[in-house]
Amino acid sequence: MSLRYKRNIIHIKEGEQRSIQGFRVLIGGCGIGSYIAECLLRMGFENLIIIDGDIVELTNLNRQNYVEGDIGINKAIALKDRLMAINPDAKIRAYPEFLDRNNLYSLELDCDVAINALDFSSDIPFLFDEYMAQKNIPVVHPYNLGWAGFLTVITPESHNLRSLDREHQAFEINVGKFIVDRLREKNIDTKWLEDFLSEYGRIATDSPPPQLSLGLSLLSGMVCQVVFNIATDKKIKVFPESYYLSMRE
Amino acid sequence: MSLRYKRNIIHIKEGEQRSIQGFRVLIGGCGIGSYIAECLLRMGFENLIIIDGDIVELTNLNRQNYVEGDIGINKAIALKDRLMAINPDAKIRAYPEFLDRNNLYSLELDCDVAINALDFSSDIPFLFDEYMAQKNIPVVHPYNLGWAGFLTVITPESHNLRSLDREHQAFEINVGKFIVDRLREKNIDTKWLEDFLSEYGRIATDSPPPQLSLGLSLLSGMVCQVVFNIATDKKIKVFPESYYLSMRE
Repeated sequence: MSLRYKRNIIHIKEGEQRSIQGFRVLIGGCGIGSYIAECLLRMGFENLIIIDGDIVELTNLNRQNYVEGDIGINKAIALKDRLMAINPDAKIRAYPEFLDRNNLYSLELDCDVAINALDFSSDIPFLFDEYMAQKNIPVVHPYNLGWAGFLTVITPESHNLRSLDREHQAFEINVGKFIVDRLREKNIDTKWLEDFLSEYGRIATDSPPPQLSLGLSLLSGMVCQVVFNIATDKKIKVFPESYYLSMRE
Repeated sequence: MSLRYKRNIIHIKEGEQRSIQGFRVLIGGCGIGSYIAECLLRMGFENLIIIDGDIVELTNLNRQNYVEGDIGINKAIALKDRLMAINPDAKIRAYPEFLDRNNLYSLELDCDVAINALDFSSDIPFLFDEYMAQKNIPVVHPYNLGWAGFLTVITPESHNLRSLDREHQAFEINVGKFIVDRLREKNIDTKWLEDFLSEYGRIATDSPPPQLSLGLSLLSGMVCQVVFNIATDKKIKVFPESYYLSMRE
């Protein structure tokens, strides 16, 4: 094991470390994606494609991987700087643009797994999944629930998320209801989450979903586990199955 | 809610946000402590004391919150720079020194909660707990298990960790066995963790414990939850009870 990854030993075997090094992870959306990218890179995923047209604002700093000096800068560009500071040998391709139905097909988005951390303010997340399904690429969907992380994986063989798109303007609320249903099936207490959804529902048309650094930390670990499993041919659950981690009771 | 914390809304009430702002969190050890500090700060804990005499090395970058340019710099100093870049108004007190039985009592370690993320290569973590118990301060113990996070809290009323100190030179192994016992009681599958402990046991006298960025991400979220609960007078579990989060099966 190289010096950089010496402390990964036992947890990650040498062959696995080699496999993940070149495994291409595409991260669509550098909000939630910002910490996910850093966690993956530190673990040894040295081949990342990051995409976001958004610029860093003060309101992002409560949870996203940016500093005050990044305010006003494109997120993909700022994130690439941070990642290269951690590992200058990493291959980081940054696209400082919003995905839309045109560039989705014209950009070179070749990858082995994709993270769909795009805003659900348009239907581009669904088009993103469809594009990846055509290319036979699994898509990881992470959701920051504030006090919890929730994650599901879409594969070409699995169902897709269109079934949750009943009212497009508040997709997050529908995802929330879906999550509550799944958790109830597993007898996990959902009272706090239902309270949150009900309170958020009243302002959802005007406000993007509240999110905490806590939830993003949990999610980063969760995404790393799923991406590692995919890269090393281990079992994962796919949609409508899901993963949920929280200490909130 | 101020602009910086606007996206914390609903999850964190205005009164809670004010409470955590001045709540003093002491972080002993800026390895595991490095990401914990950042997650706490982003959430709104703006009063942090960070302590570590260690310097940043390349082998830390697989998981700790440092970049290549920090190599050779003291961890508490490098971490303070990072935290101040996120929020220049935060009160960050950095002590670039190893705690020992002398400075533990001469430094001004006034705080409302303490994180014990110190190396168990000496008995200073136990002395740290004893010092905090005398001051009636709860102590959070986070453990990075690679594919999982484990956390327990020591309070003046709870048991302390001395009971796990059967063979001092491999305290982590004893903690590991304790964790396996607790998880078994809850019918959580521990095979992977037992395999890890057995493999690590063979090199434990020569090697510090292997740790992943994944485990540290999970842990950062877990510590934030416990510290938030303490700061806002909500219930927590104390040692020998514990918290465990993982997606490893």
